[in-house]
Amino acid sequence: MTLAFDIHHRAPNSRARVGVIHTAHGDIETPAFMPVATQASVKGLTAQDLYDLDAQLIICNTYHLALRPGAEQIAQLGGLHAFMNWQRPISTDSGGFQVFSLGAAIRDGVGKIADIFPDEARDDVEIKGDRTPLNKIDDDGVTFNSHLDGSIIRLTPERSIEIQHQLGADFILAFDECTSPLDTYEYTREALGRTHHWAERCLAQHAQTKREYQNLFGIVQGGAYRDLREESARVIGGLPFDGLAIGGSLGKSKNDMHAILEWTIPLLPDGKPRHLLGIGELEDIVNGVERGIDLFDCAAPTRWARNGALLVSRAIAQRDEIKNNRLTIANARYALDTAPIDSTCECLTCKNYSRAYLHHLHRAKELSYYRLATIHNLHFMLTFMRDVRAAIRENRWNNFRQGL
Amino acid sequence: MTLAFDIHHRAPNSRARVGVIHTAHGDIETPAFMPVATQASVKGLTAQDLYDLDAQLIICNTYHLALRPGAEQIAQLGGLHAFMNWQRPISTDSGGFQVFSLGAAIRDGVGKIADIFPDEARDDVEIKGDRTPLNKIDDDGVTFNSHLDGSIIRLTPERSIEIQHQLGADFILAFDECTSPLDTYEYTREALGRTHHWAERCLAQHAQTKREYQNLFGIVQGGAYRDLREESARVIGGLPFDGLAIGGSLGKSKNDMHAILEWTIPLLPDGKPRHLLGIGELEDIVNGVERGIDLFDCAAPTRWARNGALLVSRAIAQRDEIKNNRLTIANARYALDTAPIDSTCECLTCKNYSRAYLHHLHRAKELSYYRLATIHNLHFMLTFMRDVRAAIRENRWNNFRQGL
Repeated sequence: MTLAFDIHHRAPNSRARVGVIHTAHGDIETPAFMPVATQASVKGLTAQDLYDLDAQLIICNTYHLALRPGAEQIAQLGGLHAFMNWQRPISTDSGGFQVFSLGAAIRDGVGKIADIFPDEARDDVEIKGDRTPLNKIDDDGVTFNSHLDGSIIRLTPERSIEIQHQLGADFILAFDECTSPLDTYEYTREALGRTHHWAERCLAQHAQTKREYQNLFGIVQGGAYRDLREESARVIGGLPFDGLAIGGSLGKSKNDMHAILEWTIPLLPDGKPRHLLGIGELEDIVNGVERGIDLFDCAAPTRWARNGALLVSRAIAQRDEIKNNRLTIANARYALDTAPIDSTCECLTCKNYSRAYLHHLHRAKELSYYRLATIHNLHFMLTFMRDVRAAIRENRWNNFRQGL
Repeated sequence: MTLAFDIHHRAPNSRARVGVIHTAHGDIETPAFMPVATQASVKGLTAQDLYDLDAQLIICNTYHLALRPGAEQIAQLGGLHAFMNWQRPISTDSGGFQVFSLGAAIRDGVGKIADIFPDEARDDVEIKGDRTPLNKIDDDGVTFNSHLDGSIIRLTPERSIEIQHQLGADFILAFDECTSPLDTYEYTREALGRTHHWAERCLAQHAQTKREYQNLFGIVQGGAYRDLREESARVIGGLPFDGLAIGGSLGKSKNDMHAILEWTIPLLPDGKPRHLLGIGELEDIVNGVERGIDLFDCAAPTRWARNGALLVSRAIAQRDEIKNNRLTIANARYALDTAPIDSTCECLTCKNYSRAYLHHLHRAKELSYYRLATIHNLHFMLTFMRDVRAAIRENRWNNFRQGL
């Protein structure tokens, strides 16, 4: 079975498009946002909560699941869908991001604790102290020192794909070398050579051990360097992947990111779905869709929720003078506020609980806070994606985009 | 409005009884178990979860809510029912237990961290280190040093009742001096004198500032001393309380507790509901019901859940060689176990998730674990109470009791 992707409508004078990806675990309307379930759970939520939110697909993490509980174990338990009791599509990243987050990100001090310790509660803390990377890269693969117990884990293209076959996600990603924004041109080019070589090894392994329904996405790398990005788009776009992802360092500014999308996307085959890895701010989603992206994943909306930043609509943000569309629930002004987070929101949290109650639960570090906040922020993101799709479908995209 | 309590049926040759307590927020079938929502949240659950579990009533904590968010604040927000969006009955304890848990329990090293820090994650840890009590008792009341910020909080009988009127629970408790099992006869007698004097002050305050629907329960104290318990039952039982609670030190063994119930309950008026404070092990519930108790509350089932101890039925415990009816989900034997916690259980957790998944979530400290485990243990407790009521109603109580 090859991945069927029907593009239903395109916005005029734009690369924005709406479509449907058909998978063995159901259809995905695109553009879509996938909540992050690093360790086979969207933090604080169950699969039932995700059905209630009408999430279409989620993304789990190969490196973290290979460490705990182990890929063999998940395979024995029937794969991730059975393990989590989530019967809709799943994506897994390849461990390639951990090549960066446990390596150069630590060395360069540009990562977050949450990238290393997904069960760390205070997960917006910057990495401090020891700057020794937890991995070592060679031309054949990457050797990690487990952040859990220091044991050695070796990931190669073959091993990453084999693990992803054991996990059983619908979309799996090629194992790549995700570089740092601080890497030089020379190093980024050298790493890109590895990524391209590894891409072919991933495809070879995929052909051998995949479950019939699984689809492999290639990853375009190349940092913020135009010639490397274009080369990567041509190489990865020319290989027989089922879908294409754009990963790695997207530069130092929004403009850099837009440029990278504009360099690469025209060089990719039009008919394959495109996934912009790790990006999920509203403005970035709109700019990504405009440039031809179909799939997004990002831990930020759920992390914001846990840290007390709750997304509100533009109207509420303006009325209540809330910056960045993010209400800071810890603020004392909400202690006696009987309104919901966002009175225009239809989520379980907004329909039932006040800002005052959430303010209290957050202050008291009550476990129920994390779920209620996460439900709200994900409902917001998924509603936003529905609005994006409707705007494209109804030829209102340009207005929608400019009105953000 | 006085508290209407209809006793519908009694077990032969037993004090066990089934009945219905009618409150302004709905009926409570007794005997009943109330989940503990110390800080206005059953840890990990929302009010919606409690409706789904068909919990009949919950109990919140006066001391902790007075500290955070504050009784005035909750009153301004419409009281606890509106604050939590829980429209069924609520009970509040009086702060009397904190006279013990923040005082003698620290001095005597017999408390748990969770009694002091309800938001402490590792909440089964014993109190270590500094043995300086956080409160000071005098004949007029108790002065606390806030465990949160060291600020001074003064509770007197009048203040405790006034706070409970602001919180707005259906059942409120008299402010008493809860003594330590290590207190001498002389001290326990002296404390009992205060508790009885305070009971009258609570009644006087209640008459002045209660919301019309609120009901005040008196508390029988007296430690494990027969004459003190009997005296207390006569004094408290003779005052115009709406219901009666049995609190304080219940001795050093199950037999001590049974004796205390046998001394006191025959001296209490038959027609008022009786609440055994802080008790909730299955065996203790059965022994309490047999001796005439109608209401139970206990943090243990929800705390066990968070700490990885999941309640299972007798049949499953026997089949799987599980001690104490409590499955230890951290045990490696569950890592590949695709069965639910208890295949006879109908809870959301057992209908959807395997022991293997819960084992993983627990190990990875995923937030979703706490909710799923808590839902299971509370479902177990509430189902058990339904079985207790059915056994009494259907004249099977003696068999049920002996079969436990």
